[in-house]
Amino acid sequence: MTARPLVQPRALDRARDLVQPPLLAAVSRLSDELQAPVRHHLGGGGKHVRAALALLAAEACGADAETGIPGAVAIELIHNFSLLHDDVIDGDRERRHRPTVWAEFGVGPAIIAGDALATLAMEVLLEDANPHAARAALELARASQAMIAGQADDMAFEPRTVVSVEECLTMEERKTGALLSCAAALGAILAGAPAATVDALREYGRHLGIAFQAVDDLLGIWGDPAVTGKPVGSDLRQHKKTLPIVIAVAAADGLAGEFVALLRGRLSEREVATAAQFVEGYGGRQATMQMAEEHLATALGALESVPLAEGPAAELADVAMFVVGRDR
Amino acid sequence: MTARPLVQPRALDRARDLVQPPLLAAVSRLSDELQAPVRHHLGGGGKHVRAALALLAAEACGADAETGIPGAVAIELIHNFSLLHDDVIDGDRERRHRPTVWAEFGVGPAIIAGDALATLAMEVLLEDANPHAARAALELARASQAMIAGQADDMAFEPRTVVSVEECLTMEERKTGALLSCAAALGAILAGAPAATVDALREYGRHLGIAFQAVDDLLGIWGDPAVTGKPVGSDLRQHKKTLPIVIAVAAADGLAGEFVALLRGRLSEREVATAAQFVEGYGGRQATMQMAEEHLATALGALESVPLAEGPAAELADVAMFVVGRDR
Repeated sequence: MTARPLVQPRALDRARDLVQPPLLAAVSRLSDELQAPVRHHLGGGGKHVRAALALLAAEACGADAETGIPGAVAIELIHNFSLLHDDVIDGDRERRHRPTVWAEFGVGPAIIAGDALATLAMEVLLEDANPHAARAALELARASQAMIAGQADDMAFEPRTVVSVEECLTMEERKTGALLSCAAALGAILAGAPAATVDALREYGRHLGIAFQAVDDLLGIWGDPAVTGKPVGSDLRQHKKTLPIVIAVAAADGLAGEFVALLRGRLSEREVATAAQFVEGYGGRQATMQMAEEHLATALGALESVPLAEGPAAELADVAMFVVGRDR
Repeated sequence: MTARPLVQPRALDRARDLVQPPLLAAVSRLSDELQAPVRHHLGGGGKHVRAALALLAAEACGADAETGIPGAVAIELIHNFSLLHDDVIDGDRERRHRPTVWAEFGVGPAIIAGDALATLAMEVLLEDANPHAARAALELARASQAMIAGQADDMAFEPRTVVSVEECLTMEERKTGALLSCAAALGAILAGAPAATVDALREYGRHLGIAFQAVDDLLGIWGDPAVTGKPVGSDLRQHKKTLPIVIAVAAADGLAGEFVALLRGRLSEREVATAAQFVEGYGGRQATMQMAEEHLATALGALESVPLAEGPAAELADVAMFVVGRDR
């Protein structure tokens, strides 16, 4: 990817510093039995990209960062709820180089801990005295619903051999775009921004989400296991229908029986490598990189389409480039 | 139980008729992949007790039933979300004489379908034009959180041999009381009732919930499998720490090693019957019936503590008696 700052934008560190205390304060209200699994999960860290978008969007709309905090806390809670349930559903035993909650505490506690975080997100927003809090809570509920729909699509695609590029894009827009979109929109809503500004920030987040997911899809096949914390070619092993894969299958157009055969059954190390070569050979890698670039450009364009405070808008652009160009 | 009307109160039929259409309309907005598991689950029916409480509470506070509908739909959605996840957690393969969602569609779809219903509940309330909708949504989020805490307690108690009666009551108040309490409070909140009235209806629901759970605990040991849809003594088999059991263990006070031994391990038919006899012998059955009566009386008393419209208040009392005295 181009134009990638090599160091993590300051906005992400600041988001962590501003959001961790109120987030942990909210978590401390959960019942005793839920503290251990939730804290184990949160102890794995995270980049706080969604929190940063909420805070920067509030500032880009002329409010102070504090105005965005309930939105930032809520969106991080929803994101972590989704990770807890995804790990159960996908059977993933490790995340961020540590055991997942279900692997450490059991499936029941992981389900319940996720439920608690999702509910806590709504509590945090609805307890905010901000006059736009209810509108923000509705935005969050709708985005959560879209994300859940994306997860349902993702599951439904696994046993299918052929998924169209369009279906895949819709799934990824829901699964990842919805929350990034919501993060940016929440900041703007809590800042009391006009509808056109909220819409522009929503679009910024949506396209950034698609670009982000496209890059994640590349890492799911070609990422360094030491960095991603997942085995080589993990998406191929799990029969995930990610962008590079569905693009390659569409390009092969039924001509490559051997390739399609590799998208089923249990794959050996060698078969994973062969499948990855097929995906690359049929242009899946190149086309996905291209899509990530295009959606990043659209996201950056959305920031130019409405009047925003200059400094925070520039930071939103920095975060977008960092996130999409990240090498892990 | 005494004073039980033998026929189902009309309020429950009316609740089903009023709530099913908007509930199904809300469900139809979910993504395609979620429709089948959600509709399978809802097809099992249900008594619509929570919906009836929301509608009657709104009317008892001088509003029309329509005012309570978004609250009634939301509380039914949360209730069904909890059933979907409970069935996964407890490994129950049947509910209402039909396969549970995880047994029919898999664990992943059951988790996701539950998540979708929980989120939909918030959407339904927050989309309501009622000026008290945001306050109602916060009430619902807090009740959901309490219910989740109750579920976490319930799970944590299973491997323990001794659970105090107080711990058990707290768990049951959270697990069942929170939603019934919320149902009645939602109707009052949406009707714009004064705080004292909301509080009284919340108390009505809370005590009704405890009474309801106490009766359910009796059925979990002595219920007719043909009616409950669960095997004889299912709570004993699953090592659930329900009221009759914890009361009996407390009464045995360490004197009954054979009884306590029956609360561990895999039980045969015969051992289940013996354990049930121990529970009855140590007074667990009688004391639980007594508690159900007391909490029912407190619930009915709460209805007398504030001015309420007479007809709907009488129906709230009828529903309470029916629910607690029900013979299934």
